[in-house]
Amino acid sequence: MVFDVFSVLSEVRSRKPLVHHITNWVTVYDCAQVTRSAGALPVMAHAPEEVEEMVSLAGALVLNIGTLSSSLVESMVLAGQKANDLSIPVVLDAVGAGATKFRSRECFELIDKVKFAVVKGNSSEVGTLAGAGALTRGVEAESVEGSLSELARELAVSKNCTVVVTGAEDIVSDGERTVVVRNGHELMGRVVGTGCMAASLLGAFNAVEGDSLKASACALAAFGVAGEIAATKANEPSKFKAELLDSLYVLREESLRKARIEEMNLDSDLNPKNARPEENG
Amino acid sequence: MVFDVFSVLSEVRSRKPLVHHITNWVTVYDCAQVTRSAGALPVMAHAPEEVEEMVSLAGALVLNIGTLSSSLVESMVLAGQKANDLSIPVVLDAVGAGATKFRSRECFELIDKVKFAVVKGNSSEVGTLAGAGALTRGVEAESVEGSLSELARELAVSKNCTVVVTGAEDIVSDGERTVVVRNGHELMGRVVGTGCMAASLLGAFNAVEGDSLKASACALAAFGVAGEIAATKANEPSKFKAELLDSLYVLREESLRKARIEEMNLDSDLNPKNARPEENG
Amino acid sequence: MVFDVFSVLSEVRSRKPLVHHITNWVTVYDCAQVTRSAGALPVMAHAPEEVEEMVSLAGALVLNIGTLSSSLVESMVLAGQKANDLSIPVVLDAVGAGATKFRSRECFELIDKVKFAVVKGNSSEVGTLAGAGALTRGVEAESVEGSLSELARELAVSKNCTVVVTGAEDIVSDGERTVVVRNGHELMGRVVGTGCMAASLLGAFNAVEGDSLKASACALAAFGVAGEIAATKANEPSKFKAELLDSLYVLREESLRKARIEEMNLDSDLNPKNARPEENG
Repeated sequence: MVFDVFSVLSEVRSRKPLVHHITNWVTVYDCAQVTRSAGALPVMAHAPEEVEEMVSLAGALVLNIGTLSSSLVESMVLAGQKANDLSIPVVLDAVGAGATKFRSRECFELIDKVKFAVVKGNSSEVGTLAGAGALTRGVEAESVEGSLSELARELAVSKNCTVVVTGAEDIVSDGERTVVVRNGHELMGRVVGTGCMAASLLGAFNAVEGDSLKASACALAAFGVAGEIAATKANEPSKFKAELLDSLYVLREESLRKARIEEMNLDSDLNPKNARPEENG
Repeated sequence: MVFDVFSVLSEVRSRKPLVHHITNWVTVYDCAQVTRSAGALPVMAHAPEEVEEMVSLAGALVLNIGTLSSSLVESMVLAGQKANDLSIPVVLDAVGAGATKFRSRECFELIDKVKFAVVKGNSSEVGTLAGAGALTRGVEAESVEGSLSELARELAVSKNCTVVVTGAEDIVSDGERTVVVRNGHELMGRVVGTGCMAASLLGAFNAVEGDSLKASACALAAFGVAGEIAATKANEPSKFKAELLDSLYVLREESLRKARIEEMNLDSDLNPKNARPEENG
Repeated sequence: MVFDVFSVLSEVRSRKPLVHHITNWVTVYDCAQVTRSAGALPVMAHAPEEVEEMVSLAGALVLNIGTLSSSLVESMVLAGQKANDLSIPVVLDAVGAGATKFRSRECFELIDKVKFAVVKGNSSEVGTLAGAGALTRGVEAESVEGSLSELARELAVSKNCTVVVTGAEDIVSDGERTVVVRNGHELMGRVVGTGCMAASLLGAFNAVEGDSLKASACALAAFGVAGEIAATKANEPSKFKAELLDSLYVLREESLRKARIEEMNLDSDLNPKNARPEENG
């Protein structure tokens, strides 16, 4: 299964979809910048009085619970349900699900009340949502029982959405198809916010591509290739981060030949211990 | 009409005015850093219990509605009215005005309750405030009917303030005088937060210069020249952003000879389609 | 008195303690990244429903009042008392104490309700907490009467904690021992957030080293040496900031031979006019 990543990225650049975020306050700037660097337009708005109107203007909605509060979740539900009414794709970044009862409960509430196009997390976050035995230490993946790809597929089926499990290799499943994206660089795990940025890109790509598995895999591949290019230019986190964003900004068709999206045989076993740690999404 | 930009910048650097911000959570760090890099001192404080006391220590107050909430607007009104009592200049950055009814309403409420020295927005935001037919897509300028300079002048007259319309060329009008600032670089529009940073500089410059049109034009020219210098050092957004802030930090008198502040003949027609897009202020 | 800074840093890197922050919204990203670059794991969570559970997973708790609100202080008290129950060290960064009555009052409330391992501030913030005549201008140190080292020692004795006074030279006192850390570079004072970052490092180092004076002095020395190295690579604030974080990330044993932690004779007089200004912590 090979997707034309550049073609989807080009759609983002030409259509410049507005990506409405209700997100955490740690990485909010980077979510906005990565959206902009990919060619889309970010807007961050969380007041309950305006989120429904704002999301109506958007091509996608990204909800990120990294620094959630109960009032923020109320705004997320309002915006998410309005997006559902308008068939605007909604992405959930389940940052830290499983770390606290409150965080898990709010996640389940969101999934119960809003129909998500994409649910994203690291192995322990997705493990929590799938009901598997999982431990989340703060917002860091710790361990999860069972096969990640099976977990992703099962959660995708039960919630009728695309599930993204981020790690050294990213898994994407829509319940029928499951792919692994073998791009990226370990320095991405040293930069706070790369997980959140990935969610923003999931929003931007899903805004222009209706096949959510394809959109999600292409977003992750594009981001991963940008990371690989950035790692040739800087080998320490903060300088690498600037190169990562800039590599995405200039990403060209020939570079995207390095995209490695592969269909998975679900009997193969991805080792969850390879999971790339991510903090604050 | 030629202003001595370096002289006003030097006042900022020597007097180091405190610039109190009640601003959005996306670009709050960059607002603080740009204030610091210009030589002034930022303070961000939004609790209703302390904003009046904090603004009393300040040389200017910057209000930015990028991620507004009703409680934040209450703090803005408290701080703004206290600033008015003390004749401390107040700057409004009307981020996203027109995008939602809530945002426009809160903007009008602020303008109704607080006397602003400067009201700033992109073409659609100012168009909204001026009551012109305008469309705001998220926080991005879309289109506006009529001449921007006329809109700016009319709004300046009706609100008795200086109006700044940011774009590829920035317009500044105090109702009597209208100038255009022809500095800057298109990469500034690729970096999230340059609009918000400009508002912080409007605050810093208005803190030391009582002629608000002059202060505002000088702030925009200094920022624009810094952008032109930065563009000679980096041509991708994230690296450019660091160069932009650092170019401002080291900005010298000879560089400011490139400042292009020109008095406008209001019969000439600036094309709003040249407007530089700005996201999140 | 010589501490083995590298040994404590190595403990941080190998044990990767989770550092729970309830902090300000200006520098929250940098607090997370500096924690990560030092080798520890940051988590930012402030909802009252989850802070007690989150801090239970952590090795240290950092409370920073830079953009405090009354509801945030409630969460800080909940988290701080839970940390106390579990003997998890708590660090207070008293950003802007003394600038407003509200800020000072909330600081005193925190110190009253939570047992801190470390209380940190610049000269005027610590002066305020110690009850000395002090002026805080926004979040900038202004002036303080009397000897800083005496103030630090007295506050340490009265609150039974380690007190850190940041400045051109940092003072650390636990009431019995008082040391001065003579590392750092003036460019650190040009970057918004270096003070807040220092507090995050105080958290990370106190998480792995039970001698709070030693942990604190080592954290400040490591950060200061990283600043000295960064200053050899960049001489303007924004590029310097990236080098500062990256220098910390790669900090090696041989570099830490430049650590200058010296025991103080409290009869000597440190001049508070040397204090390095810090904004927003």
